[in-house]
Formats: sequence, C-alpha cells, structure tokens
Amino acid sequence: MKLLRFGEKGNEKPGIEINKKWLDCSAFGEDWSEDFFENKGLERLKIWVDSNIDKLQDIDKKTRLASPIKRPSKIICVGLNYSLHAKESGMPLPEVPILFMKATSSLCGPNDAIIIPKNSTKTDWEVELAVVIGKKATYVKKENAMDYVAGYCLHNDVSERDFQLHHGGQWVKGKSSDHFAPLGPFLVTKDEIKDPHNLRLWLKVNGQMMQDSNTSDLVFNIPTLVSYISQYMSLLPGDIISTGTPSGVGLGLKPPRYLGHGDEVELGIDGLGSAKQQALDFDNV
Amino acid sequence: MKLLRFGEKGNEKPGIEINKKWLDCSAFGEDWSEDFFENKGLERLKIWVDSNIDKLQDIDKKTRLASPIKRPSKIICVGLNYSLHAKESGMPLPEVPILFMKATSSLCGPNDAIIIPKNSTKTDWEVELAVVIGKKATYVKKENAMDYVAGYCLHNDVSERDFQLHHGGQWVKGKSSDHFAPLGPFLVTKDEIKDPHNLRLWLKVNGQMMQDSNTSDLVFNIPTLVSYISQYMSLLPGDIISTGTPSGVGLGLKPPRYLGHGDEVELGIDGLGSAKQQALDFDNV
Repeated sequence: MKLLRFGEKGNEKPGIEINKKWLDCSAFGEDWSEDFFENKGLERLKIWVDSNIDKLQDIDKKTRLASPIKRPSKIICVGLNYSLHAKESGMPLPEVPILFMKATSSLCGPNDAIIIPKNSTKTDWEVELAVVIGKKATYVKKENAMDYVAGYCLHNDVSERDFQLHHGGQWVKGKSSDHFAPLGPFLVTKDEIKDPHNLRLWLKVNGQMMQDSNTSDLVFNIPTLVSYISQYMSLLPGDIISTGTPSGVGLGLKPPRYLGHGDEVELGIDGLGSAKQQALDFDNV
Repeated sequence: MKLLRFGEKGNEKPGIEINKKWLDCSAFGEDWSEDFFENKGLERLKIWVDSNIDKLQDIDKKTRLASPIKRPSKIICVGLNYSLHAKESGMPLPEVPILFMKATSSLCGPNDAIIIPKNSTKTDWEVELAVVIGKKATYVKKENAMDYVAGYCLHNDVSERDFQLHHGGQWVKGKSSDHFAPLGPFLVTKDEIKDPHNLRLWLKVNGQMMQDSNTSDLVFNIPTLVSYISQYMSLLPGDIISTGTPSGVGLGLKPPRYLGHGDEVELGIDGLGSAKQQALDFDNV
C-alpha cells in the first residue's frame, strides 16, 4: 500500500494511492499516527480498503499533500552513511552509525516550501531514504530488525550548514527549522519494495542533477541501523529513521553552493515517488 | 497551580496538588498535553478547579506519579550551562547555548526506576530545572520570552557517559534510553515561582549530597534560552527545555562514580518538589 495524507495544514486527512489514484480514507476513522501503527493499523487498513474500495472518494491531485505520517515521537538521522558523502564532507568513514535528531516540528508536506531560516546563508539539500518503524523496538537483533519496519518514505533532510557546524555544539541546531523535513509523497509499505538496498535516489536543483546514487552504497544498512539505534533508545511506532544522504550536497561542491529564494528542488527514490520544493526566504513566505 | 499525572503506565490521569492534597482532574476531560497548553488549558483549568474543587476526589499518595506532562514533541537540553559543571567536565565555558535532544521516549514518572541500559558502565545523574513551553515560540525576542513559558519541573537528565562521549558522533546516544528522563513530581505554573533564577537545586546518591547549587549560577538564563532556541526551531506547547546541570555529576568526581543496581537517587528544587529514583539494571527491572 501507499499511504498519504492530504489537505490544508492543521486539517489533514488520511488517504491512499492505488492505481495512480488518490483515495480519501477519512471514513476509516484514524489518522496515520503512532496509535495507528501500534494497533496493527496497516493490517486493518488493508482489509478495510479491500471491502470499501468502491466507496472511496477520489482526491483531486491539485490538493496539498502533507507528511504521510502524523507527527511521530522522533526523527533520528544517520550521519555520513554514504562513503562519497563522508569524503565530500571532509570526514572519515564512521566506524559505527553517527546518530542525531531532527525536531519533529520541522516535518512538512513533500511539496511544501523549504523555508530558509532567518540569518541563514547555507541552507542545503539532502535526499534520503527514510524508514518508518511499525512497532516498538528495544534491543532488537539485526536478524529480526526488518520485522519492526512498516515501510519507507522519500525525505529531504534540509540542513543549515553554518547552524549545524559552526554555532557551537551539536548538529541539531542546523537540522530542526520549520519545514526542514519535507516527507513523502507516500509511505510505501515494506511489502512493495523488494530490495530497499537497491534503490536509485536523486535530487536536482533548478533542473540540474546534484545527487544521483543508490541505496546499495549505504555504509550501514537498514537492519543494522534499526538494531543499532534500538540499543540506545526505544523506537516507537511511526518513528522515522532517515538513513543518510549520498554525495552531491551543496556543502561538498567546490565552491559550495546553497539554496536561495526561489530555487526549485526536485527529488525522488525508486518506488517511493518524487517531490518538488521551492526554497523561500522566511520573510517572503 | 501544581499539575500532576498519576496512575499506571499507559493509563495515566491528570490531577493537581492543592494544599498538599492530590486531586483527580479526570472530569476536566483533558490530559496535560500539547493540545491542552495550546488551547489555553491552564487558564481554563484554573476556572474549572475554582468551581469544582469540592467535587474533586483525593488521590491516595501511594499512587504512582507519571510525568506531569503527556509526552511532548521534544525535550531540548542545554549543555554545560553552569560554570563549575563545564569545569568538572573539562570543557570551556560555552559562548552560546549548547543544545542537544533527548528522545521523548525516555520520559517517565518522577519516582520510577532509573533503568541502567544494557552494556552501560557509566550511568550518571544530572539534576536540572526544566522549563515547560506554554505556546508556540518561533523567533521570540528575549524581552518577550517569558510569555512563552507555562511553568517549571524538576528533571533528572540521566546520562550514559560512554554512550554520550565515546560511541561516535553526537550526545543523543547517551541521553535517550528508556527512563532516562524522570520528570516531576509537578509542573508548577510560572506564577507560583517568583524568581526561577534563584532556586536551590540538589541531588543525593544513597543519602550523600552530590549536587547542591542554585539556578542563579546559570550561564544562560531562561529568557535567553527560550529566545535562542526559537531562532533554530519552533518550540511547541508542552515542549521541555532542560536548562543544564550544576557541578557534582559522577563524571566530574575523582575518581568518577556511576550508578549501580540498587543505588538510590533523591533530588529536588525549591518550590518544585522532590523525587526519588532507584537505579536498576535493565535485566533486573
């Protein structure tokens, strides 16, 4: 299944995509939230859709898409998880996954604007494969880790490099501004993606290809990440692990290049759809 | 007002403390959550309590207390915000607030066990003044920052020093295990604390005083922190800012000393109450 959420901010409704159609699932009576995943929502939804498919109303494709998951308890990101990206960042390849958090208040829809924060000069892009957790994971073994995965999303882990690296302390400052986590268009359930470790992922700025890689290049793969993170904290249903970005970010260019007002970012991952975001200055949104 | 939450995990109810009595506020029909704070819940609750005080049922003081706030969107912590603590950590005094996040899945009740994670040898204590946000704060000026504060809580920012400092990357790994954020007993509303920058805070381990300081020693005070953080991300109603710990943590002792199975931690802050937590090995909870 492909789950989506649609409608204006603060009034978002759940839906699905089937055969290229977007269908309103408000009548299911639940949002795609922690509670939904926790209470076997995906299984129940599949059964419900099978018996109600003819009654579901089409959603106009001009409608705004929201994050396909209602705000989860956390977004945990993995740093330097593609070897060429570590190199372009001037950092050694990590021996263990580097983890950092992104405030969940940064979540937005896949085609919402990237808002360039006040005082930002280095707002950068990062296409990433995001993994969505399906059930609570604590001290999970690598060999069982995929049981805890609900599915995958396309994610732009928008980053302000000056805030991240030169404002004292930890990376979270450069990862958490509002609209720094455009997610979607869809949550694609695990069964639809045969091999999550062989997906092309790409990102263009103003039509120019900047990132073009494949998840086969991940340093730490998905079961490793789920298991590893679950040693340090419990992952809750709906939680997002953003698995890291490949090379080609603005920081790695010579000279570096960052997003300015009006720039258009387009990104995609095989099987997970694509998204388009315009960068807008905070004061001109 | 002093807000509390009580009852078994997963079935927690809202209450208040008045004149040393704990009173059940289930009939108010709302939990102390983001929605509650966002929708002027504190003002509405005050009026409701005034007209219903005689009908509210006593809560047996043997009842478990939960976190006084339902899981918020984020816990943002401030590092090295007391000068003597920076010194004992072997770090320079920060020029700007150092921020890091703690997974909200680590929240627990004020007297719940501190669970020593698997493979931990350096689980440490940190008494802290936690600030609770009352309304959404984005790019707030220092002079208005206190308008965004709902109140204060006692917080033990439990930390695993090896996970935090020597497992690669960012501090979040050592801050986020389950039960690493005992919060409460109460959320004390802002009006009840005349000067939050002149509160004694202390922590004992097995009866021995380890931390004994005063919030007057904060490097960055509360309005500065609220304003500063809101430049990097939106603070949402119910969000917690943990303002940093004074000197006297286990890491700073010579030789260092960490929590072992059965150790008893007691902590308190003037006006915010006290809490008692027993440290238990994960495998012996």
